[in-house]
Amino acid sequence: MFRPEKDFTYLMPIHFGGGKFDPESKIYQKVTSLAMSYETDRKILENFIPEEFELLVPEVQVAFSKFTEINWMHGGQYNVINVSAPVSFTGKKDQLEGDYTLVTWENNTQPILGGREQTGIPKIYADIADLHILKPHYATTTSYEGNTFLNMNFEATNAITGNDLEQLKSQFKTMNTIGWRYIPKVGAPGAELSQFILYPQSIKAETAQIGKGSLKWTEQTPMQNPSQYHIINSLASLPIKKINQAVLMDGSAELHAMGAKIIK
Amino acid sequence: MFRPEKDFTYLMPIHFGGGKFDPESKIYQKVTSLAMSYETDRKILENFIPEEFELLVPEVQVAFSKFTEINWMHGGQYNVINVSAPVSFTGKKDQLEGDYTLVTWENNTQPILGGREQTGIPKIYADIADLHILKPHYATTTSYEGNTFLNMNFEATNAITGNDLEQLKSQFKTMNTIGWRYIPKVGAPGAELSQFILYPQSIKAETAQIGKGSLKWTEQTPMQNPSQYHIINSLASLPIKKINQAVLMDGSAELHAMGAKIIK
Amino acid sequence: MFRPEKDFTYLMPIHFGGGKFDPESKIYQKVTSLAMSYETDRKILENFIPEEFELLVPEVQVAFSKFTEINWMHGGQYNVINVSAPVSFTGKKDQLEGDYTLVTWENNTQPILGGREQTGIPKIYADIADLHILKPHYATTTSYEGNTFLNMNFEATNAITGNDLEQLKSQFKTMNTIGWRYIPKVGAPGAELSQFILYPQSIKAETAQIGKGSLKWTEQTPMQNPSQYHIINSLASLPIKKINQAVLMDGSAELHAMGAKIIK
Amino acid sequence: MFRPEKDFTYLMPIHFGGGKFDPESKIYQKVTSLAMSYETDRKILENFIPEEFELLVPEVQVAFSKFTEINWMHGGQYNVINVSAPVSFTGKKDQLEGDYTLVTWENNTQPILGGREQTGIPKIYADIADLHILKPHYATTTSYEGNTFLNMNFEATNAITGNDLEQLKSQFKTMNTIGWRYIPKVGAPGAELSQFILYPQSIKAETAQIGKGSLKWTEQTPMQNPSQYHIINSLASLPIKKINQAVLMDGSAELHAMGAKIIK
Repeated sequence: MFRPEKDFTYLMPIHFGGGKFDPESKIYQKVTSLAMSYETDRKILENFIPEEFELLVPEVQVAFSKFTEINWMHGGQYNVINVSAPVSFTGKKDQLEGDYTLVTWENNTQPILGGREQTGIPKIYADIADLHILKPHYATTTSYEGNTFLNMNFEATNAITGNDLEQLKSQFKTMNTIGWRYIPKVGAPGAELSQFILYPQSIKAETAQIGKGSLKWTEQTPMQNPSQYHIINSLASLPIKKINQAVLMDGSAELHAMGAKIIK
Repeated sequence: MFRPEKDFTYLMPIHFGGGKFDPESKIYQKVTSLAMSYETDRKILENFIPEEFELLVPEVQVAFSKFTEINWMHGGQYNVINVSAPVSFTGKKDQLEGDYTLVTWENNTQPILGGREQTGIPKIYADIADLHILKPHYATTTSYEGNTFLNMNFEATNAITGNDLEQLKSQFKTMNTIGWRYIPKVGAPGAELSQFILYPQSIKAETAQIGKGSLKWTEQTPMQNPSQYHIINSLASLPIKKINQAVLMDGSAELHAMGAKIIK
Repeated sequence: MFRPEKDFTYLMPIHFGGGKFDPESKIYQKVTSLAMSYETDRKILENFIPEEFELLVPEVQVAFSKFTEINWMHGGQYNVINVSAPVSFTGKKDQLEGDYTLVTWENNTQPILGGREQTGIPKIYADIADLHILKPHYATTTSYEGNTFLNMNFEATNAITGNDLEQLKSQFKTMNTIGWRYIPKVGAPGAELSQFILYPQSIKAETAQIGKGSLKWTEQTPMQNPSQYHIINSLASLPIKKINQAVLMDGSAELHAMGAKIIK
Repeated sequence: MFRPEKDFTYLMPIHFGGGKFDPESKIYQKVTSLAMSYETDRKILENFIPEEFELLVPEVQVAFSKFTEINWMHGGQYNVINVSAPVSFTGKKDQLEGDYTLVTWENNTQPILGGREQTGIPKIYADIADLHILKPHYATTTSYEGNTFLNMNFEATNAITGNDLEQLKSQFKTMNTIGWRYIPKVGAPGAELSQFILYPQSIKAETAQIGKGSLKWTEQTPMQNPSQYHIINSLASLPIKKINQAVLMDGSAELHAMGAKIIK
């Protein structure tokens, strides 16, 4: 009969075995990112930020990333659309600034499951096209069962070099990603588990370009996207007042797989 | 700022809103199932059954299902491969017999997330082909990123009618599906949450056929299926001694969305 | 060495073998169709009709179909969006009325190849969602690499019965589908092969419903759909003046696989 | 009404417009290829070579390629599995050596249509996974509706440099790709059009590695792959006596889109 090992960590289904917990285990992957941020309406954005946080700037950050040569996926790959806002957290014990994850779409279910259950990143599924590249033009489309809800377009104008590159490198070197791990009660309203989790991320940028970026959210009906339409329509309701940054970046990431912690 | 409603139930991301908890809310969907069960080796199968249960019979149950016209997906659909074994549970409080879910593959991420987080069904992703139907032959293939790991074939021989149909209807009318909801600790080995959950299922069979069924598990390498190869290879290690049942069934399901409960 | 058999018919690659030409060979498949037609601008529509034809009515016909249990695909299935206009043809030899195929999208490459090369139906690829069904509502989305370009919605209002059903049955029983088979010259402009082909289709309608239908074409950029944007944008330029018919139909089709002929 | 332009070239559907024939138009794309060749049985292989050719060496060439940043696809991409054999052709007019294309699988329908109709390359559809890369290991899987039929694995051992790289570059610089364009008669056996076409290809190799390669064909049933099983099973019947070459290569391609010609 199956009994879990005391010093192992598991994901469902656990009875086929897990892995020995190793605080030093590393995730390695190559990264190409197209990151944009834009100014929006503070009042509307605050509706989507938990009251335990303070919104630092009325800004939405949207980043497409393609991860490849991923060691824990034995060389596999996937694409991500990450949406976040800059916040500060002042708890009884912890005080920190970081990026509160509003939602993360990924085109591969496996990292979605781990991200949600291990670190509270609210990952959900979408089809995310690889970058179409007709230099200096870049484009990607995010959709659900054929229903487009996000278009990102980028025209590279300048390579980032020298001090500007050093500054960008340090921006991506330490990112305080924050998620809200929430598991509902069974047969009752409310949470069985509700925790804010800090999961520091780090990307080693190698080359980067700035350019003109644009993005477009398209509202969805329940028949087009039954479980996500309220998320997409909330994001679509946030006005894009001004693109603050649009950057395309190549590099790699090496991070502590077990480096997350609960913040209080 | 966002604050959860006390009488709501949520899934991540929760800050875009959830739904009012309604114990009477119903799931409705149409169902076509190809269900097979086979005798296997008791010793090997017991390795995958938690020690809190007793294996009633050394039998593996594998069922392909296609769900359509799903109300909570606003008319969407998905396919499932469910693998279970018949067990009994004798806890401090509860005593019952049911089907312990070894693993459930689905080709749609949304029900995977709800199934895992709300009811502990160990759902993971695979591509599951719709039934190819060249009467009386039926076939379906399950794969991951192009790597076939399960083939199911069926040749219908007889319609099930009369008393046999009534018996089959009652077999599908009340099914005690059992899952193990397990959420790991952050930054440490072991479980933050570990619960056995009973989620009664019910299918209203309308027509059914018996026939000759066969299925084949194909072992996978880590590069073919990095997160599931150990599951598939465990299942492939279970000898198929004898097919006990092979049945194709059409019907519908109506079940209490909030009808699951923790068993102790 | 390989040499083609004289009495065989082949598709590329031919050196692995073909099939004996059998004028009696039949295609059998089950069919669910959502067919709509709408009045449009005659001048614009005529731009897309070859001068050998006459446009009978300024009408565009758009039909979603799901074909299943297809005998020549050994039980496989695929979805279709067919777009056509009613025309008459008066050649030196042949005189007939039929539906000139403007474009056909299919979500499976195999029938695309046969349709183009054997019968001149201008089939191209798109992702075509299965009908989402939340009775009486039906919806489907057609897209290319995540870029939505056609939405169809239908609300069933009445079952068609009696004489109306008989009339509908006869409408679907004999359909003169016309394509233009065109193979370009190698290393030069113009056609190596250019033929109009009549391929009679027949659907045996079993049940049908009328209702309120709507459809929406969405214009595409070359980066979204490099080989089809001019087709989609041409169709999007045709005003939808009035929906003439919207019908949902279930049935089957049995047709002569080799029943096409060149019209002159 | 529509009438084709005399100096244009078209693909179906032609009535929405084509492009001006430009003999100088260029295709540009980036290329990553994993190419293997193996010795096989001459007698069996000759069954699949048209009698107009002579098989130079009993060798099968199998190459996975990923094309990206493709100009004519406005920055899109696709994957290819190309299977060929080295032949010589002695016609009434032309005498040349080249690679006769046995079959080409692609995971994008658009280049399949152009390849077949413009240049006679017998392209058909399959799902072809991007390379999984866990250096020095590389793997890819080719499948049809979830049914694996080709696995390729590669372990890089040495970078190719100096004279060896120059030699490899020249191997890829001029490749005489030969296809058989065959369009069947309508309503009768035999060919309406049957031509051998030479389409010179050129890849500019930039970096390359040799290593240990292996590949495996898996036989298919008609229900798994109704239109290709005879092709796959023919290839699977060819013994892999010895891997002659296994090389991984990065580079780019620039070729004359209209550079093909009929050979006689």
